[in-house]
Amino acid sequence: MPHPNPPKHIGVILFPGFQLLDVAGPLDVLNILSKTYPLRLSILAQTLDPVSTAHNVEPTIPGSDFAESIVPTHTFANPPKDLDVAIIPGGFGTRDEEVMGSVVGFVKGLGGLRWIITVCTGSAVLARTGLLDGKRATSNKKAFAWVKQQSPAVHWVSKARWVVDGNIWTSSGISAGIDLIYAWVGSVWGEEVASLIADSSEYERNTDSGRDRFAERWGVAKL
Amino acid sequence: MPHPNPPKHIGVILFPGFQLLDVAGPLDVLNILSKTYPLRLSILAQTLDPVSTAHNVEPTIPGSDFAESIVPTHTFANPPKDLDVAIIPGGFGTRDEEVMGSVVGFVKGLGGLRWIITVCTGSAVLARTGLLDGKRATSNKKAFAWVKQQSPAVHWVSKARWVVDGNIWTSSGISAGIDLIYAWVGSVWGEEVASLIADSSEYERNTDSGRDRFAERWGVAKL
Repeated sequence: MPHPNPPKHIGVILFPGFQLLDVAGPLDVLNILSKTYPLRLSILAQTLDPVSTAHNVEPTIPGSDFAESIVPTHTFANPPKDLDVAIIPGGFGTRDEEVMGSVVGFVKGLGGLRWIITVCTGSAVLARTGLLDGKRATSNKKAFAWVKQQSPAVHWVSKARWVVDGNIWTSSGISAGIDLIYAWVGSVWGEEVASLIADSSEYERNTDSGRDRFAERWGVAKL
Repeated sequence: MPHPNPPKHIGVILFPGFQLLDVAGPLDVLNILSKTYPLRLSILAQTLDPVSTAHNVEPTIPGSDFAESIVPTHTFANPPKDLDVAIIPGGFGTRDEEVMGSVVGFVKGLGGLRWIITVCTGSAVLARTGLLDGKRATSNKKAFAWVKQQSPAVHWVSKARWVVDGNIWTSSGISAGIDLIYAWVGSVWGEEVASLIADSSEYERNTDSGRDRFAERWGVAKL
């Protein structure tokens, strides 16, 4: 059964050093959805300057200069008032304490939204706001030990492609955000809608939230 | 065997109405690769203004306003001189004749690059330049009939996740660009490198270029 009152306005949180696919995987699906169902997007960041995937957390190497920038529509200081959903990506920017200060501060105020969705280490950001306290959540498997350190108050689920706890959906690493968003679209607009978009996008979904071979791959299945 | 002389400089072609995942799927993989191997990215477009996924080709619906913009680094008039590779995405922008005029004109000059990669209907763009004449190529399966009309001089392969003909790699629709880029990275930097990035990204690859259930799904398997 599709949701009787689907969301109309989705916000994406950007910060320097965000992981491109964490954002673009879900948004590409929602771009297609918005051609059939009314849906608005706001892109929120500290300032209105384009936000780059580049960051200084991982050491760069000589000869490399490889990044993309996405343009925000709103600042954290002046967000739209009618957001239904927030999508929080991960990326190495989450390891930058200065960047995280402003992001965590803003996300802390989003507890009243109808849905919060995180991809990859976006759940580490959400964990630091306290909004995940006492809830089940997952995250990037390669970074799982670090993510757990961000909050002991969260029930971290190591083996899961994604986890749903109430209105909070958290996915495993990077590519898992695509499976999460199809499952979420299926839960809100109906499974037929999700399947049609996946087929149009020629995407082979993992529809089983518990299937996750990457927990073993990265040695965290027993954590 | 990895390539003895891997590329150092990759260019991505953007135009209004490009499909976000066609670009972001491959670039996210290359972002990660660039942390270990020297690699530069240039983002090319008609002007230096941010390029939006929005377009006027598909009818919009009331209440929808959903798009993202990426910032170019170079114009078609002043491209970098040392590109090794071009990545050409698809999207509904390829149906806009005015947009395509400038893009096809620019791409026509890229025949000397070491590799050309297209995702989704990006192969329709490349077909119109003549650079695919006499070569095997694939494209988006839902749009396949339209793509074939863009050039009868191409040997269009309807059932394929991706196709390699010499230095030209073409993928099927949207998500297939991710499988293509992992295969290409494997062919150039080695399969171990590609597998490590896929595992880090928690991506379940389709490593068989001939496996393509979407050709049947969209009724073009016999085309």
